[in-house]
Amino acid sequence: MAFVTLEGMEGSGKSTQAARIAQALGPDTVLTREPGGTTLGREIRQLLLDPRWRVDGVTEVLLYFADRAQHVSEVLRPALAAGHSVVSDRYVDTSLAYQGYGRNLPLDTLAHVAALATGGLRPDLTLFFEVPIDVGLARIGARGPRDRIEAESRAFHERARAGYEALMAQDPKRWVIVDGMGSLDEVGARAIAALRDRGLVKS
Amino acid sequence: MAFVTLEGMEGSGKSTQAARIAQALGPDTVLTREPGGTTLGREIRQLLLDPRWRVDGVTEVLLYFADRAQHVSEVLRPALAAGHSVVSDRYVDTSLAYQGYGRNLPLDTLAHVAALATGGLRPDLTLFFEVPIDVGLARIGARGPRDRIEAESRAFHERARAGYEALMAQDPKRWVIVDGMGSLDEVGARAIAALRDRGLVKS
Repeated sequence: MAFVTLEGMEGSGKSTQAARIAQALGPDTVLTREPGGTTLGREIRQLLLDPRWRVDGVTEVLLYFADRAQHVSEVLRPALAAGHSVVSDRYVDTSLAYQGYGRNLPLDTLAHVAALATGGLRPDLTLFFEVPIDVGLARIGARGPRDRIEAESRAFHERARAGYEALMAQDPKRWVIVDGMGSLDEVGARAIAALRDRGLVKS
Repeated sequence: MAFVTLEGMEGSGKSTQAARIAQALGPDTVLTREPGGTTLGREIRQLLLDPRWRVDGVTEVLLYFADRAQHVSEVLRPALAAGHSVVSDRYVDTSLAYQGYGRNLPLDTLAHVAALATGGLRPDLTLFFEVPIDVGLARIGARGPRDRIEAESRAFHERARAGYEALMAQDPKRWVIVDGMGSLDEVGARAIAALRDRGLVKS
């Protein structure tokens, strides 16, 4: 039983690999995501990603953490308590990277908000899918219209990326970097190898 | 120019008096409310008050503060910066009373969240409309179906009420208690008299 989170920039391929990773962890693994892992969270997700809104940066981070609190209470804790492994496509690190570092919001305050929202629930392992920013943006450009976060400036994405680097440096044992370049099968095999190295998947 | 907030339990009459109070402060006074003082906030308000949702207590307080952050950024600060007085029907104290005290969430953490959401913007004066809990609940019962907060237990309302008492004791100069019993004109006259005592309304 493990709680694994997937992190990375837009277009890093983590969401595409999420099902494969969940399957590798075993048949009862719960695959979920943020924002929008609950019914209420899907409503919050709509508010967050709709390009019509001019969302204040603080409003944005509080909406992400509201979604997360509901997700922890309704999905993550019950699944782990029932003995299931859980894979979450994005978790606290996303808000710290994108809102804390990306929007220059105070990291110490966000740590208090994170503690409130999660009740201290931390992942056992976080896979960071690494691709150059330009590659990620080109991938999402090919998908169609960008959502409100995807449409942010390149400087914002660079600050978020630097934020991930800082988060990895603070807690290196929790993170594994997965090279996100190459075919879906190549990237997937690297992710599963990382789980195997941690003893989460039998060889 | 003043920033006045209205607080009280459900059915205390504050919302009914809000327009009269704004008018007394002058013709350019901005009258607004939480939750739902912005376009995005009205969407958040729907999520908060809809009895269909089972909203986690932490999710709830983060949604209230998300609404508040947008309200501060989009309405309160611009209005005050333009020299207008502002009357807000509910503000930070509501979340501290109902979620902090009412739901036993950690008050020190909520203080950090409040600082983030408001950027330190505090009211000059807060009017607390006081009616016995039974009177307030009977008034809202006469209005029709209750929303999700109104439908909470009596014990919850009593904890919130005790929370307001604690908040008033911590910062007594900011608060004025307005007796909410009697006719609309009687209660309104008391509220205006309180503004006059503070020099906010000419006699």
